Amino acid sequence: MINFKNDYNSPGHPAVIQAVMDAAQTKYPGYATDEICGLARQKILSLLEPGAGVGACVNSEAGVGACTSSCAGSGADADVHFLAGGTQANLTAISAFLRPHEAVIAAGSAHIQVHETGAIEAVGHRILLTAAGDKVTAGEVRRLFRMHTDEHMVKPRLVFISQSTELGGVYSLAELRALREACDENGLLLYMDGARLAIALTAPGSDAGLPDLAELCDAFYIGGTKNGLMFGEALVIVNEALKADFRYYQKQRGGLLAKGFLLGLQFNAIFENGLYFEIAAHANKMAARLRTGLEELGCRFVVRSLTNQIFPVFRTSAVEKLAENFLFEIWEQMGGGYTAVRFVTSWNTTEEEIEALLAACAKSIEG
Amino acid sequence: MINFKNDYNSPGHPAVIQAVMDAAQTKYPGYATDEICGLARQKILSLLEPGAGVGACVNSEAGVGACTSSCAGSGADADVHFLAGGTQANLTAISAFLRPHEAVIAAGSAHIQVHETGAIEAVGHRILLTAAGDKVTAGEVRRLFRMHTDEHMVKPRLVFISQSTELGGVYSLAELRALREACDENGLLLYMDGARLAIALTAPGSDAGLPDLAELCDAFYIGGTKNGLMFGEALVIVNEALKADFRYYQKQRGGLLAKGFLLGLQFNAIFENGLYFEIAAHANKMAARLRTGLEELGCRFVVRSLTNQIFPVFRTSAVEKLAENFLFEIWEQMGGGYTAVRFVTSWNTTEEEIEALLAACAKSIEG
Amino acid sequence: MINFKNDYNSPGHPAVIQAVMDAAQTKYPGYATDEICGLARQKILSLLEPGAGVGACVNSEAGVGACTSSCAGSGADADVHFLAGGTQANLTAISAFLRPHEAVIAAGSAHIQVHETGAIEAVGHRILLTAAGDKVTAGEVRRLFRMHTDEHMVKPRLVFISQSTELGGVYSLAELRALREACDENGLLLYMDGARLAIALTAPGSDAGLPDLAELCDAFYIGGTKNGLMFGEALVIVNEALKADFRYYQKQRGGLLAKGFLLGLQFNAIFENGLYFEIAAHANKMAARLRTGLEELGCRFVVRSLTNQIFPVFRTSAVEKLAENFLFEIWEQMGGGYTAVRFVTSWNTTEEEIEALLAACAKSIEG
Amino acid sequence: MINFKNDYNSPGHPAVIQAVMDAAQTKYPGYATDEICGLARQKILSLLEPGAGVGACVNSEAGVGACTSSCAGSGADADVHFLAGGTQANLTAISAFLRPHEAVIAAGSAHIQVHETGAIEAVGHRILLTAAGDKVTAGEVRRLFRMHTDEHMVKPRLVFISQSTELGGVYSLAELRALREACDENGLLLYMDGARLAIALTAPGSDAGLPDLAELCDAFYIGGTKNGLMFGEALVIVNEALKADFRYYQKQRGGLLAKGFLLGLQFNAIFENGLYFEIAAHANKMAARLRTGLEELGCRFVVRSLTNQIFPVFRTSAVEKLAENFLFEIWEQMGGGYTAVRFVTSWNTTEEEIEALLAACAKSIEG
Repeated sequence: MINFKNDYNSPGHPAVIQAVMDAAQTKYPGYATDEICGLARQKILSLLEPGAGVGACVNSEAGVGACTSSCAGSGADADVHFLAGGTQANLTAISAFLRPHEAVIAAGSAHIQVHETGAIEAVGHRILLTAAGDKVTAGEVRRLFRMHTDEHMVKPRLVFISQSTELGGVYSLAELRALREACDENGLLLYMDGARLAIALTAPGSDAGLPDLAELCDAFYIGGTKNGLMFGEALVIVNEALKADFRYYQKQRGGLLAKGFLLGLQFNAIFENGLYFEIAAHANKMAARLRTGLEELGCRFVVRSLTNQIFPVFRTSAVEKLAENFLFEIWEQMGGGYTAVRFVTSWNTTEEEIEALLAACAKSIEG
Repeated sequence: MINFKNDYNSPGHPAVIQAVMDAAQTKYPGYATDEICGLARQKILSLLEPGAGVGACVNSEAGVGACTSSCAGSGADADVHFLAGGTQANLTAISAFLRPHEAVIAAGSAHIQVHETGAIEAVGHRILLTAAGDKVTAGEVRRLFRMHTDEHMVKPRLVFISQSTELGGVYSLAELRALREACDENGLLLYMDGARLAIALTAPGSDAGLPDLAELCDAFYIGGTKNGLMFGEALVIVNEALKADFRYYQKQRGGLLAKGFLLGLQFNAIFENGLYFEIAAHANKMAARLRTGLEELGCRFVVRSLTNQIFPVFRTSAVEKLAENFLFEIWEQMGGGYTAVRFVTSWNTTEEEIEALLAACAKSIEG
Repeated sequence: MINFKNDYNSPGHPAVIQAVMDAAQTKYPGYATDEICGLARQKILSLLEPGAGVGACVNSEAGVGACTSSCAGSGADADVHFLAGGTQANLTAISAFLRPHEAVIAAGSAHIQVHETGAIEAVGHRILLTAAGDKVTAGEVRRLFRMHTDEHMVKPRLVFISQSTELGGVYSLAELRALREACDENGLLLYMDGARLAIALTAPGSDAGLPDLAELCDAFYIGGTKNGLMFGEALVIVNEALKADFRYYQKQRGGLLAKGFLLGLQFNAIFENGLYFEIAAHANKMAARLRTGLEELGCRFVVRSLTNQIFPVFRTSAVEKLAENFLFEIWEQMGGGYTAVRFVTSWNTTEEEIEALLAACAKSIEG
Repeated sequence: MINFKNDYNSPGHPAVIQAVMDAAQTKYPGYATDEICGLARQKILSLLEPGAGVGACVNSEAGVGACTSSCAGSGADADVHFLAGGTQANLTAISAFLRPHEAVIAAGSAHIQVHETGAIEAVGHRILLTAAGDKVTAGEVRRLFRMHTDEHMVKPRLVFISQSTELGGVYSLAELRALREACDENGLLLYMDGARLAIALTAPGSDAGLPDLAELCDAFYIGGTKNGLMFGEALVIVNEALKADFRYYQKQRGGLLAKGFLLGLQFNAIFENGLYFEIAAHANKMAARLRTGLEELGCRFVVRSLTNQIFPVFRTSAVEKLAENFLFEIWEQMGGGYTAVRFVTSWNTTEEEIEALLAACAKSIEG
C-alpha cells in the first residue's frame, strides 16, 4: 500500500532523528531551559527578522517567502515556546490569551472547529464561525465583531487562521494585511495555526514570509510535526502583552515537556541549512506533479490547491479500485456516483509513488 | 559537571531511539491506531497477567515483582492508552474519571499538588491533602472521606498515589491492599502515578508487581519518560466503568499524539527482553551504591529511600563545594548550617560517576 | 411610557410577593430543605401526573394541556430543584448532565447560543446549531448526530429546546414525540428550557401538557421569573440517571440559594388555585388581541406567533414615532425602510395598554 | 422551637419586602440598568467616601466605622454590581480577576474552602491555605508567596478574607493595613467576602469602616442576604484594572439577574435611614447579651467572638436537652463528653428569645 493519507504518517526525517540519537546519553537541564533549545530559538528568531528571505533558497524562481512587507521587525523580540502538538499549541495559546468571556473567530473548516474534540470549548471559549469559505476574511471579522454588542453575548477577541488552510489554500500578504487591519480596528488578536506553515511558505505564488507573519500576527506557530520532526511546534509570541507567564499555562495544560531538549534538538536540526524549507518544497513539488498529472487525466477538483493537499473527484467505483493499493482519505460523497478524495504528499513522498498513483488513477478512470 | 539532577535529563536509551530511527520513513496510521501500538499494548497486557512475574528476571534474589496477590486478573482486559508526559496523563485521566464536584485525595508531596501548576484545579477539581507523610494511608483516606458530608463540600472520589513516591518510597503490597479496602468501603477510585514505576518494581524489598497493580488499582500509568523512553507514559485503565470514550478526552486535552506510533515504537522497544526492568534495576543499583557509600561517610538522610532518589544532608559549605562539579537539586535548607540535597540516578548513571561523587562527598565532608 | 419590552419587567404578582411578606419573620431551614419547598414540590409533581390536565381550567375550549400521550408517568418520581434564573438553570443542568467531550444540539436562536454570554462553553461544552429555524427538528438531530463520528469531534449528547421558543413558537406533542424518538435512537437527552413554559402550556392550540413533558423530556424547567414570580425556575429531572448529586452541582455553580424557602414560598403561591396558568393565559389573551388588532391594520409579521411575543414589521419612521410613548425591542432592520419590532405581553399587561398601543400603531401607520 | 441556627433563616426585613411589594407592578428596564439600581449604587458610593462615618449613628460610643485611615478616596469611583448570593459573588469575582494559573490565599476556615463545594476550583483556581487561624495574616501571605517560585507551581494572586470571619472575628484596621502592605509588596489583590460585613462594621471595638475598605481592598462585597435583604450582595470593585467587562462575567456565570431592579429596590430600602447598620447593631447587641449571660453561667467558649456568632461549649447531655426546644448548629465534638455549639443572632432575634435560651442553658448546665 502506498500512503497518501496525510503528512504525519512517518516518524521523522532521518537527519532530525539522528540529531536526537547523537545526543542520546548527553545530559541537559529540563523543561526547555537548555542551550540547544536556546540555539533553536535563535535560529527561529533570525528567520523572523526583516529581509530574512525565508525559503528563498529553495524557491528562488518565485522569490517566495521574501519579506515584501514594511516589517516593523518586532519578530526579533518574540518569545518562542516549544510544544509537542498542534491541538496542544492551540488550546494552550488561546486559553492563555483570552479572558473567560472572549471568543475566537474562525472558518467553519478550522481544525479547532472540526478536529479537536471541542478543545477550545473545554477551556471555556466559544468559536464564532465565518459564513463561508476556508479562509477568514476581513469582512467576516468585521461582521462578526459588529454582531456581538453587549454583555449578553461573548466578546470576539482572537481571529484564528491556518496557513496553509485545511483545504490547501494560502493566505496572501494582502489578505493577511487586510485581516490585521480588521483586527486593529476592533481590538482583536490575530493568531495563526502553522501546522503546515512550511508548506505555505514554499508554495508557488506564496508571498507572505516569516518576517511578514512576525509583523502581522500577534502569535503563530511554526509546525514541525507535519514537516520532518518527530513532533514539535514552535509557538512564536510577538505581542508583548501576551508574553507574561506563558510557561505557567504550558505546564498547567500538560504541554511543557520535561525533556524539552528533544524539541530543541529537532528544531535545531531541521533549521540547519534550510532543511525545513527544502523538504517542504519537495512535498509541494510532488503535489504539483500529482495535480498536473490529474489535470491531464481530465480530473475535476473540489478546490484548486497549490500546496501538498490535492482534492480530486473520481467516480466512486474508481475510488474503490484505487483503495486496493493506495491509502488516502475519502473527503466527501458528492452524489451522482462521484466521490472526492484527499491525497497528501509529504517530505518523504517519492516521484515513483506519484507516478504509481497517477498510473493507477489513469487506469481507474478508464475502467 | 556530572549530572545527578533528575532522571529525565538524557534523550533516551539508544535502543529506543534506534527503534524510531529504523522506522523513520515507514508510514503508519495516525493516532496510535497502528500495529506497533497494538504490539506494545499486547506486551503490556501480558505483563499484567497473574503470575507474570514482572521484573523477576532482573531482581531474582528478592523475588521482587512476583505476583503474590490473589489476582483477579482483570489486567488482561485493561485498556492501554499512550500519552506524552506525566502531567498530561494525570490531568487527562482525572478529568475523565471525575464528575465536576468530585475531589482527589493525595499526599502533600504529590506531584499534582506540588509541581503541576494547578493542572487538576484547572480542569475543575480540588485536591484534598492527607495530614502528613509522603504516602497516602488508608486511615487518612477514611478520615478525609468522613469529613466531607454533604453538598456544601466537594465529594472525595479518587485516591492519587505515586509509585515510587516523591521521596523515593515504595508502597508495599499490604499498603496497597489496605488502600484498596478503604477505597472499596467508600466508593473511591485508586489511581497510581507511575512516573517512576519501573524503579519501584525493581527496588529492593518491593513486593507489589504489575499484576498486583492491575488487580488493586482502577487505573495507573507505566512511566516511560523517566526510564529509557524519549517520552511516553502508558495509561492502563482496568476499571470497566472508566474506559468509555477515553480517546475523546485524550484528544480534547491535547494528549492524543498524531504520531502515536512513536509511542508504540518506543514502548515496544523498551519491553523487548526485559530492557525496561533491567535499566531500572541498574539505576537502583547505582543508588544503592551511593547510599551505602554515604552511610559509610557517616551521612544523615532526610528520609531512608531504597530507590533512585537519595536525600543526604551536608553542611551548607560542603554543598557549595560539591556544586562546583556536580549538578543536583537543593532539597531543603535545614537550619543550623545544614542543607539537604537530592541525588538522582538513572538508566545511564555509571559506576564511575557514583565513585566520583562519593569521593567528592568524602572530601567536602572532611573539608 | 407603556412597556412592551419583555415579560420580566415587573417585580412580581402581588399574591406571590404577599406570600413572602406574610412569612417575613418566620424562620426556616436553609437551602430549600424546608417544608414550604416540599409543599411546592408536591404541587409540581401532582401537575406532572398522567391526566393532570394542566391548564384545562383556564383553557377549556381547546382542552389545552390535557395529557394526550400514553404517559409512562415517571413524572411522579421526578426530582424538583429550585434555581434563581434561567441562565443558571441551563448552565447548571447541562454541566451536570454531560461529560467533558459531550455537546449540545440547539437551534441558532437558542437562548444559550444568543444571550447567555457563552455560559455553556464556559462550563466546557460546544453547542452544535441546527441548520435553520427556531425549532429543533428530529431530522436535524439525526443529521448532526451522524456528522460526529469519532474522537476527533465532540459527541452530541443533549438536545436543547425552548418552550415556547425565542420567536414565540410552541412545539406540538407530535414534534416532541418525534424529537424523543430521534433522541432514543441515538442515546441523546432531551432538555427543555421552560422560561416561558406557562405561556406555551396555555397558548391556543398547544397540545403538550406537563404530564407529556414529564414523559418525553429527561429534564425541563418550569419558569417562574417570566410568569408572576419575583425570580425562580423549578428544574424537573425525570431521568433517574441524571438525579444523583444534583445539589452539589447547584451549590458549586452558585445556584443553591441560602434562602431556598423564598423559592418555595413563591412557587407555592403561584400554583395555588391555578394562578400560574391563569396569568399566563391572560398574557396570551392580551397578545392575541394585539395580534388581531395589528392584522386588522394590515401589518406584516416576521413570524406567526400564537404566544406572548408579537413581531410586527413597520415603516422605520412609524417605529420611531411609536418609541416616543412605548418601550419595545427593535428586532431587526429589514431593509427598504422597514423595521421589525417585538412587543411582549405579560401577566400584568392591561387591555387599556393594548388598546393604546393599537391606537398608536394605527396612527403611525397612517402617518 | 426557637431558631439560633443561622442568620439567613427568615425571608427578610419587612421594610425591604414592602419596598418590593410597593413596586410589584411597576415596569423597569432589566439587568440592573434601572434607576433604582442607580440610586442604590449612589447610596453605597456615598458610604465609601472618606469621612462617611458609616454606622456611627448606631454605634456612637465607640465611634465605630468612622474613617480613621488616610483614605485615598478611590471608593467614590468604584463600580458596584449586584449579585444574588455569596458563593456566586465569590466565584464570579475571583474567576473574573484571575488568570488561569493564578491562585487564592485564604484561611483554612474560609467559606470558599469549607462550604462552597469547590466552586473556586470549578472555575479553575487553587486555594492556598494559611497555616492556622481564622484570619489571614500578612506573615502568612508573605510565606505562601515566597513558597511559589516558578512555573511548576501556581502563582498566588489574590488574598481572600471574610469580614466578619467564619468564627466571628473582625479584622482591625491595623490588620487590614498590614495585609494591604503584604499585598502591595507582592503584586497581590485583596478581596473581602462581606457576607457579614454589617455585623463587622457595627461590632464593638471594630475600627475599619467602609471608607477604609474602599481604600484598602481591591474589591469587596457588602452582604445583604444575612442582614435584612431577601437576597443580594453588592460587589464593590475599587481597583480600576479589575472593572472592565465585569457584567460579561456576571452574565456568563448565571449571576446577572434579569430582574436586577429587585436588588436595587432592596438595597435602596436597607440603606434608607441607616436601617442596614441599625439591624446589624441589634443582632450584635442580642449576641452580646447572650455571651454575657453565658459567661455568667460559667460557660467556656471555643473562641471569643464579639459579633453575632457565639460558640459556647456544653456537656453533650446538656446540648441534647437544649436541642429539644432550640435550633442551633453542633460545631464540634470536643471529646471528654463536651460539645461545642454555634448560636447565631440576627436582625429579628428578640430579647425574649435570648432570655429563653439563657434560661434553658442555665437549666441544662445544672441538670
